[in-house]
Amino acid sequence: MQPPRGTRDFMPEEMVKRNYMFRTISEVFESFGFKPLETPAFESWELLAKKGGGGDEVKNEIYYFKDKSDRELGLRFDLTVPMTRVVASNPQLPKPFKRYQIGRVWRYDRPQAGRFREFWQADVDVVGSASMKADSECLLVAVRALEALGFQKFVVRVNNRKILNGLIELVKIKDRVGVFRSLDKLEKIGKKGVMEELSSKNVSKKDAEKLFSLIELKGKPDDMIKKGRSLLKGIKIAEEGMDELETMITEAKMYEISDYIIFDFSLVRGLDYYTGPIFEVFEKGFENLGSISAGGRYDKMIGMYGRDTPATGISLGIERIYEIMKERKMFKTSGVTKAFVLCMNDSVRKDAIKLSQELRKNNINNEIDLIGRDFRKQLDYANSTNIPFVVFVGEKEVKTKKFTLKDMKSGKQELFSLQDLIKKL
Amino acid sequence: MQPPRGTRDFMPEEMVKRNYMFRTISEVFESFGFKPLETPAFESWELLAKKGGGGDEVKNEIYYFKDKSDRELGLRFDLTVPMTRVVASNPQLPKPFKRYQIGRVWRYDRPQAGRFREFWQADVDVVGSASMKADSECLLVAVRALEALGFQKFVVRVNNRKILNGLIELVKIKDRVGVFRSLDKLEKIGKKGVMEELSSKNVSKKDAEKLFSLIELKGKPDDMIKKGRSLLKGIKIAEEGMDELETMITEAKMYEISDYIIFDFSLVRGLDYYTGPIFEVFEKGFENLGSISAGGRYDKMIGMYGRDTPATGISLGIERIYEIMKERKMFKTSGVTKAFVLCMNDSVRKDAIKLSQELRKNNINNEIDLIGRDFRKQLDYANSTNIPFVVFVGEKEVKTKKFTLKDMKSGKQELFSLQDLIKKL
Repeated sequence: MQPPRGTRDFMPEEMVKRNYMFRTISEVFESFGFKPLETPAFESWELLAKKGGGGDEVKNEIYYFKDKSDRELGLRFDLTVPMTRVVASNPQLPKPFKRYQIGRVWRYDRPQAGRFREFWQADVDVVGSASMKADSECLLVAVRALEALGFQKFVVRVNNRKILNGLIELVKIKDRVGVFRSLDKLEKIGKKGVMEELSSKNVSKKDAEKLFSLIELKGKPDDMIKKGRSLLKGIKIAEEGMDELETMITEAKMYEISDYIIFDFSLVRGLDYYTGPIFEVFEKGFENLGSISAGGRYDKMIGMYGRDTPATGISLGIERIYEIMKERKMFKTSGVTKAFVLCMNDSVRKDAIKLSQELRKNNINNEIDLIGRDFRKQLDYANSTNIPFVVFVGEKEVKTKKFTLKDMKSGKQELFSLQDLIKKL
Repeated sequence: MQPPRGTRDFMPEEMVKRNYMFRTISEVFESFGFKPLETPAFESWELLAKKGGGGDEVKNEIYYFKDKSDRELGLRFDLTVPMTRVVASNPQLPKPFKRYQIGRVWRYDRPQAGRFREFWQADVDVVGSASMKADSECLLVAVRALEALGFQKFVVRVNNRKILNGLIELVKIKDRVGVFRSLDKLEKIGKKGVMEELSSKNVSKKDAEKLFSLIELKGKPDDMIKKGRSLLKGIKIAEEGMDELETMITEAKMYEISDYIIFDFSLVRGLDYYTGPIFEVFEKGFENLGSISAGGRYDKMIGMYGRDTPATGISLGIERIYEIMKERKMFKTSGVTKAFVLCMNDSVRKDAIKLSQELRKNNINNEIDLIGRDFRKQLDYANSTNIPFVVFVGEKEVKTKKFTLKDMKSGKQELFSLQDLIKKL
């Protein structure tokens, strides 16, 4: 029997790698003082619908169900909505509230290559700060997490919603969402395609050209700030956005991560709730996978559930990061079991158990026969489960207190005393 | 807004403790070579119903729903059923297959004190061994995990289903399940109550007395083996059960954990799928909470989904263990953040960031202001979030390269060079 459509089992070999990822990422998150939060797998439908836009179309994209008291519920589709609920209903939390959460989320997408209905995300958010210092730290955390996993060749694309809004203001467009949606397709359908869409949305050719003079800009921050400022001079909201970008890059320079960053004025990033800086991280050579990390500022969202509170955050796309690491063999993990204690016969089982417990006390993960198998079959098991070392315990070993250690890879065998065995392993 | 009925949010302070539990437990599990497995949060209804007995009554005890293609699904109610599915559909897995899984499960119980609809379990199972060596190791793992968490005063109650079956044979009772159900109530309704129930189930007084002569036995293993054997002499299945208990206790003695164990012939443990040894662990002084760990052998369950495969396992009840640890203050955890780097003004922010990054490189979790707050408010934040140390970075500090470290608990302040600061923290 297979797991339900769109979901997966993770076998031990894969889980060891995923746990390594989760551990590495949470260590980086905690090094910045982000604190763990956990929320239920499902939330009230009312809460989920609010962020999704409120309509019934959200119901088609999530797992929706009723409990036996007819409460409408849904499996969480991200980690941000539950967090905003927690923050909104705990106004006493000291600010900034820095939390991280790593966990599964569910979306009722059509399953396809690399897309699942159950998948994992890793989020950090800073709640209660309107300062760009918070946005810069979110970028920094993502960069450090990727570095800790062994990534070196990624690019952080940054833009600011205020600049996009200023741009729309510049060309006096009413259908802001429609225009954003078209601009967002630039990479997919090219300039010509976007121009055609804009024209069908009643944007004049002249205005469309104006839009493109900015959104075609991308490059090193300092250069982009200069060009952007001259193009958007006098548009208050856009100038505010440029100021924000400038503050962010000042912080990023102090963090010495500015080399990763390019400003890309075409970056739109979804449609709804972002209000300031937005970011997306791409790995070179894997751009077609989409962003491996993304986020931005959403100052209006918590206000939907409680008191208005500024917030910004970034999310790491666990599944994509895992795919790249797997393809590039970036995992520095070994199996769970370091040694198999091979008990030659039941008369020395007590001694084998003693040795096994001694190794365990010294943090050496080891296994011992649980079936009552003979010598040959125990060795087969160690072999087929890729245990790197086998220690033999027979009558001779017990008498001489010297144990044979076999390196299963090289086939080499050596005699060790218990103390040396512990050192060696 | 509150989380859905029967579920909880875990705030950072609590999560730090829970993560400590999860980490400690998985380290113990892995020290025995148990390997992590992960399965989806929901399974097909068909799969869940099979173990639940197949009937619609299971639907009332779990979260049941349909996806948009009308597939019948349910949130998993334990970690055993998903594991048996994985094992049954991967017959190539080397045996024994030793897996652990720590994760949430859901049951649609009526919420009450200490009972939740979403809760966590931690399971180890050994699949593919019919030997009592496997059962003993499961007991050992649970004991070691509890010890690692700081538990010392627990009792492991052990029995064997084969003995119970033999007992039923002895008195020639047909309604085995009904009798088990009555015996299981011994602690609750006392001997008199059970006798009455048995009588209503057409068990003669003489037979009931015979049953009681065994199930009232509980005590040290060696003694119980002797008494049990004499009472059940000649009943083949019961003798098999006694042999199994004896093998288990021989192993447990080699592991030096037999002092924790008592044989309790009244232990029934659920009704359905156990086929051999069964165990329950109780913490002294918290018996009313119920067992904090429990398990047993279920040799027939995997065969329901695939090839017959013997299996045994044990589960740790995370929520109950947490409650006891909280009440007894057994958590050896501190907060996430070790130090707050207090930046006196923006002119030294670069230096403060440098210091913060240096500490981080040396595995010292630290935070820095993200709001643009003044001295006083930064200190308030460190105080209200229980950060134990504050490092001050001002112009004087930058010039002299000596930083003031404040111990927030004692209020004591001292000057340190960067190197000494790292050592101190």
